Amino acid sequence: MREPKPLYITDDNIGLVTDFYQLTMAAGYFQNNVNTPATFELFVRKMPEDRSFLVTAGLEQALHYLKTLRFSENAIDYIRHHPSFKRVKEEFFDYLRDFRFCGDVYAIPEGTVAFAEEPLLRVTAPMIEAQLVETYLLSTINFQTLIATKAARVVLAARGRDVTDFGSRRAHGPQAGVLAARACFIGGCTSTSNVLAGRELGIPVLGTMAHSWVMAFDTEEEAFRRFYDVFPENTALLIDTYDTIKGAHLAKRIDTDNQLLAVRLDSGDLLELSKEVRKILDDDGLNHVKIMASGDLNEYLVDGLLTQGAPIDIFGVGTEMVTSRDQPALGGIYKLVEQERAGSAVPRMKFSEDKVFYPSRKQVHRFSDKGGTYTHDMLCLEGETSGGFPLLERVMEEGEMTMDLPDIKVLHDRAKESISNLPSGFKDIKCTRSYTVKKSERLQELRKNTEEELREANKPQGTTTKA
Amino acid sequence: MREPKPLYITDDNIGLVTDFYQLTMAAGYFQNNVNTPATFELFVRKMPEDRSFLVTAGLEQALHYLKTLRFSENAIDYIRHHPSFKRVKEEFFDYLRDFRFCGDVYAIPEGTVAFAEEPLLRVTAPMIEAQLVETYLLSTINFQTLIATKAARVVLAARGRDVTDFGSRRAHGPQAGVLAARACFIGGCTSTSNVLAGRELGIPVLGTMAHSWVMAFDTEEEAFRRFYDVFPENTALLIDTYDTIKGAHLAKRIDTDNQLLAVRLDSGDLLELSKEVRKILDDDGLNHVKIMASGDLNEYLVDGLLTQGAPIDIFGVGTEMVTSRDQPALGGIYKLVEQERAGSAVPRMKFSEDKVFYPSRKQVHRFSDKGGTYTHDMLCLEGETSGGFPLLERVMEEGEMTMDLPDIKVLHDRAKESISNLPSGFKDIKCTRSYTVKKSERLQELRKNTEEELREANKPQGTTTKA
Repeated sequence: MREPKPLYITDDNIGLVTDFYQLTMAAGYFQNNVNTPATFELFVRKMPEDRSFLVTAGLEQALHYLKTLRFSENAIDYIRHHPSFKRVKEEFFDYLRDFRFCGDVYAIPEGTVAFAEEPLLRVTAPMIEAQLVETYLLSTINFQTLIATKAARVVLAARGRDVTDFGSRRAHGPQAGVLAARACFIGGCTSTSNVLAGRELGIPVLGTMAHSWVMAFDTEEEAFRRFYDVFPENTALLIDTYDTIKGAHLAKRIDTDNQLLAVRLDSGDLLELSKEVRKILDDDGLNHVKIMASGDLNEYLVDGLLTQGAPIDIFGVGTEMVTSRDQPALGGIYKLVEQERAGSAVPRMKFSEDKVFYPSRKQVHRFSDKGGTYTHDMLCLEGETSGGFPLLERVMEEGEMTMDLPDIKVLHDRAKESISNLPSGFKDIKCTRSYTVKKSERLQELRKNTEEELREANKPQGTTTKA
Repeated sequence: MREPKPLYITDDNIGLVTDFYQLTMAAGYFQNNVNTPATFELFVRKMPEDRSFLVTAGLEQALHYLKTLRFSENAIDYIRHHPSFKRVKEEFFDYLRDFRFCGDVYAIPEGTVAFAEEPLLRVTAPMIEAQLVETYLLSTINFQTLIATKAARVVLAARGRDVTDFGSRRAHGPQAGVLAARACFIGGCTSTSNVLAGRELGIPVLGTMAHSWVMAFDTEEEAFRRFYDVFPENTALLIDTYDTIKGAHLAKRIDTDNQLLAVRLDSGDLLELSKEVRKILDDDGLNHVKIMASGDLNEYLVDGLLTQGAPIDIFGVGTEMVTSRDQPALGGIYKLVEQERAGSAVPRMKFSEDKVFYPSRKQVHRFSDKGGTYTHDMLCLEGETSGGFPLLERVMEEGEMTMDLPDIKVLHDRAKESISNLPSGFKDIKCTRSYTVKKSERLQELRKNTEEELREANKPQGTTTKA
């Protein structure tokens, strides 16, 4: 009887956490002796629908990967025996055995507002290294940025009320729950139900009780009292198991010493119920007892509830936030923008159909008014000056980290400030405007010239290989 | 300078991969001496929109969890020092230290078609154990079932053509990519780009080349040739970097020995381009070269392309499949349905608002016609006979696995057969009908009686605790 497999990611198997073509291309580059420095940029081509900004997240896990990436003997063995690799020389496997990522990495710090076309991460390394890391970097930064962005929207909708992440059970597997908890906290949540995220990251953890707790005792009142006896300062009574209004009336009987934290509504018409429950609590002298609401909430529902005056103090948000349900994927891509050939940096780009991007190593410059409100960004070539504030910072040099990793609370605060600096229209969850990302004149010129050169080189028939 | 954290899930921290309230409830049950056997069932209340069936997946990882779940000293230390736990007795932490899951588990085998209201998994264990495992079981089974279901739809739309999973870069973090690859293969995909999934599970891995490969050489032709030289039997030329039609014309110049596997289209109008490219290939005598298409495909696009006669042989599907983009969460829940009190099994249920479910330990009976086509299912009490085939099998007894874990190819084949047995309308990706899940008379009777008893017990005011 074989053992069940957990399908964990570990430092030992991390080399295989990639798309197969990264390995075939690596072998192809190796055998063709193509390994001069190349620069790739990770960016989102177009803003997802119904998103007026992104909140960057995932860099710390990306850096862990770049620092740690190795190919274990087990991993090499698997690759070597894949039928595709039968013509690959032994030297390539030696190369993998000694593999270390030794590149330079620039990134927009986590917890920063960003937009489409802006490089969130830029990698300069020998071609094989720079290419190999694509899949993992994308999966890390795409997901956390997606979720931090969604969380920021829910938090904006909550207008200062606490939003807590309750999503682990609907996240895309166990690790996704932990990563989502991290991203939600960066995006503005104040706590999570995910205990591992609490321990690993110091995020405050929060929980109430399940319906099963209420159902496990003969009466609701007994269930509440038994819980309160053990956790008097931290009890949020879940009052909707049988009848929400009846449950609310029990609060007074439980809270004999004014320590009850909250009651939680998890079903039904949250607007009407929260008003009725508030009235019951207040009539019973329980003004200190907060109302927590949960149950398939998202930024639109939270906004609607508060606009209509729902007296809800804490929102527990799960599924919709940790899966970014209305936009469950961020289309981040990782593209070759520059390559060293014969000692000089050659800009690279792709221009088929609608999938155009700007060549060469770039920096994002942010412009603000005197009050600190952002006015626009500008994509510039690295090294250009424009009067704007450059967003990309060096985070790794020759494979060594060059930044101090901030505590997650710093990222939470940074995101809050960065979001607060958005022009007011962009903080509206229903914003339909696009933030302006200009391109510097030099960048526009370079793109035009690069496209012309590449079109010339790739004319069909009689094409010759240039030196 | 602190080290970056990968946020891996490991056997050592698995005890903390849960919602905080599982731990507070555990302590609450422990201190209140509530730990008689309880039964929880994991099920989906309502079918997700645009889904006419589910394909079960995730059981193997759920079993790993149940076998492996422990609380390390580190984990206990974190829990003990959480402010909520200050009144919790030391004996509880001793209990955690010795914790083993010792319950009985029944499940619908992976790769089986299932529907709303049907228990996919049923856990009977002392209350604390049965409750504690909720979050991880849900996150595992919700996600893989979601993705296996989505993949099955894409595979149905592809009408026998190969579908390969290209989604790792858009999956919800690195582990989600591997879990999605597993679920996609169960759902009917024939390969994945995820190398770790290939090695761990034996799923065939597949890859082509990235645009960066094409851009890394002076000309597209040179790029193609250099790749083909290393991987002659397994090359799929990515022909849309600069101009798809021009790229297609290069195939003849590369495939000098009739070994070229495919060309891949990743942008533009896939219907028109595939037709034009097919014509070019055929005119050039390259009838053996397949056409692979990718780029934000889903079941509707695949269906539309084939309906309109697109000569596509292989579909590479990523984002839409591994995030189940139109329905990115499965609302599986885990509910207490029975509890032993004073030596007898007492049915449990919840009935507030719209969130009703059936009490007691249940079995799903499946009915088929003479040809093997499913006609309907019936929810029955455990032990009832009905003439239908019982779907839930025992997979664990007193914490020990009692099933042989099948190879993933068995699950792939089982799902294929189970889907083929659906009434034909349900195999239409646009199906709007609901499959019939009847409830046995005894179950209906029990629900009625249980609800009456619970309403009586939970009348407001003057409620007394029954013995």
